[in-house]
Amino acid sequence: MTPIRMANLTPQHFHWQVIDRIAVIRLNRPERKNPLTFDSYAELGRTFRDLAHAEDVDVVVLASNGGNFCSGGDVHDIIGPLVAMEMPELLAFTRMTGELVKAMIHCGKPVIAAVEGICVGAGAIMAMASDLRLAAPSAKAAFLFTRVGLAGCDMGACAMLPRIIGQGRAAELLYTGRVLRAEEGERWGFWNSLHEDVEAAAMELARAIAAGPVWAHGITKTQLNQEWNMGLDQAIEAEAQAQAICMKTRDFERAYRAFLKKEQPVFQGD
Amino acid sequence: MTPIRMANLTPQHFHWQVIDRIAVIRLNRPERKNPLTFDSYAELGRTFRDLAHAEDVDVVVLASNGGNFCSGGDVHDIIGPLVAMEMPELLAFTRMTGELVKAMIHCGKPVIAAVEGICVGAGAIMAMASDLRLAAPSAKAAFLFTRVGLAGCDMGACAMLPRIIGQGRAAELLYTGRVLRAEEGERWGFWNSLHEDVEAAAMELARAIAAGPVWAHGITKTQLNQEWNMGLDQAIEAEAQAQAICMKTRDFERAYRAFLKKEQPVFQGD
Amino acid sequence: MTPIRMANLTPQHFHWQVIDRIAVIRLNRPERKNPLTFDSYAELGRTFRDLAHAEDVDVVVLASNGGNFCSGGDVHDIIGPLVAMEMPELLAFTRMTGELVKAMIHCGKPVIAAVEGICVGAGAIMAMASDLRLAAPSAKAAFLFTRVGLAGCDMGACAMLPRIIGQGRAAELLYTGRVLRAEEGERWGFWNSLHEDVEAAAMELARAIAAGPVWAHGITKTQLNQEWNMGLDQAIEAEAQAQAICMKTRDFERAYRAFLKKEQPVFQGD
Repeated sequence: MTPIRMANLTPQHFHWQVIDRIAVIRLNRPERKNPLTFDSYAELGRTFRDLAHAEDVDVVVLASNGGNFCSGGDVHDIIGPLVAMEMPELLAFTRMTGELVKAMIHCGKPVIAAVEGICVGAGAIMAMASDLRLAAPSAKAAFLFTRVGLAGCDMGACAMLPRIIGQGRAAELLYTGRVLRAEEGERWGFWNSLHEDVEAAAMELARAIAAGPVWAHGITKTQLNQEWNMGLDQAIEAEAQAQAICMKTRDFERAYRAFLKKEQPVFQGD
Repeated sequence: MTPIRMANLTPQHFHWQVIDRIAVIRLNRPERKNPLTFDSYAELGRTFRDLAHAEDVDVVVLASNGGNFCSGGDVHDIIGPLVAMEMPELLAFTRMTGELVKAMIHCGKPVIAAVEGICVGAGAIMAMASDLRLAAPSAKAAFLFTRVGLAGCDMGACAMLPRIIGQGRAAELLYTGRVLRAEEGERWGFWNSLHEDVEAAAMELARAIAAGPVWAHGITKTQLNQEWNMGLDQAIEAEAQAQAICMKTRDFERAYRAFLKKEQPVFQGD
Repeated sequence: MTPIRMANLTPQHFHWQVIDRIAVIRLNRPERKNPLTFDSYAELGRTFRDLAHAEDVDVVVLASNGGNFCSGGDVHDIIGPLVAMEMPELLAFTRMTGELVKAMIHCGKPVIAAVEGICVGAGAIMAMASDLRLAAPSAKAAFLFTRVGLAGCDMGACAMLPRIIGQGRAAELLYTGRVLRAEEGERWGFWNSLHEDVEAAAMELARAIAAGPVWAHGITKTQLNQEWNMGLDQAIEAEAQAQAICMKTRDFERAYRAFLKKEQPVFQGD
């Protein structure tokens, strides 16, 4: 694949910035708590697919806007049309939303969600599909699908949520659609940590991760997905192969050389 | 399948009530803390299998009786005969117990355990095989199999318990058979929440869930089981299909119509 | 397989003691916080493989030495040579490290880690590959691979850590390499419990487990691994078979006879 440069991307449906090789994405309809539309789903999906080939981005931060993260699929723009659709169109839609999650999982870069306020429906899924989730005390996550007459199995929720917070707690959130507040979510491991200034904390964490061996981080991300349903013996062999590959990187040698000189290693991602 | 009506069921080995489309099951030997026998295992299994076709039940509550939930397999009625059995009979027995768990998983309705006092052995398994678990402060769960000379792998425990509370904590409970008390169990995610009047809380939760889109709840339950060991990409495609099906229900349209009128949707389960 | 006796083992790279059928292993380079070398990896792997056939050991305790558990792969003895190796040698090394984890998983006896102080890199993996993990307040666990320019996928970490502490918290530890302190680790379920005198607590727990039906414990351990990526219905059938086997042991009958006499059962592991 030809590497691409993404710093100057000018998306239509979200804000985009690249700061110190960290891409910051935030939805741009704060007056409506940042709902998703057919177009923003599609553009986000394309962007995460491109990120797999970006040579100028190491980490992605999914940030909030106007005090909220994302209010999920817009009722007027999305739910209205869905009610009138036939099955082929419906499946095309649910597959497109799933493609966004797949694109996030396969983008090869750690994704950090920095969540303030409302984080519901497909917004909660985007947070869940991130590798790490930081939250402000104002964060309110809810898997609202049941409230609009749907099942909790949306965009991978029945597979991902139990792995993050356990099967029993996941079932409760999916059957009831109730709000998970910040402190409870931290206690359950949904949020990695809580911060008054969550975007600053996410950027600091992103910088720390970007200062690490980013090519190897991509392998970590690959294996976290790849081993999802492997047997344990198979996972151990898979990691023997994956880590042997990483031992051929220059970053591994850089770390060793720096150690000998009692210096901090400077990783370069190759 | 022909739908069946179950409100008037008259089981022999447990109490049965249907209140507002919520089936309440409670074992009926409170003087012995509600042990299971060969017959009650079999009758419970049949009942949960029938529930998959019940048109007059939306949610199941597994309640306590006389301050206790279930003391597991009766030592005199079950363990005594097992000691004398040959392998074909033993496997017939362990399969019958496993069939109860499978029937609970495939009954198509959310199951809520409302646990007071003793909840041990096969009783702890029945709680674990429920979708949601509420407990009174008196709840004492224990996977006692090791105490009677058996392995912790009973009725799916080695698969289910790690998903609910994590691999390390599950291993501890299974190797030691020790009691998990209410507060610790809530902290670990075994209990969803603790309540002084746990049956009232379970009925309130059951009513809230029954007021939701119950047909879609059945799909949520199916997917929570179906995606247990799928790869993540496969799970996302599975949910795209499952959710597209739900978008063809009238409950989905009802939610949308209600939203437009700024009303609460009234779901009808189709 | 011919049973073997291991009490008189005289390993070169770690201390070995068998007390009351409990094998106690501790690395023997406390002055350097107990690093692993090529030779100690290999000898540990062989020892755990042999433990599967040991007739005089029921439980294993992996203990600390000089206030520390294990500092992982020695930078001079291991990382230096790796930097100069070609791929076949690298894969031979990563497979050897993975073989240690596999040997621990398949040794047929519960393994309890008793962790003081430093527990990092491959040391954290050995703790993670144990069935139970007790820690002193001084315990500091870190998955340091990222710090030496490698991926977090080492010796099965991307498969095991999410099962123990959840996917989000596991990702944080693997991407950042940060230290998990004792109290946080207990809260997350990485440590089963904290103890001022962690070795005494581990020995007490080992004795309690060794007093149980140790042959059945071996089946519990087998199933915890075996069902790792089975479907739930398949796991329930697998447990029906596994538990039926255990019902043919004399320990099962001993427990029943003891119950009838209102005595404590004395298990003998057959």
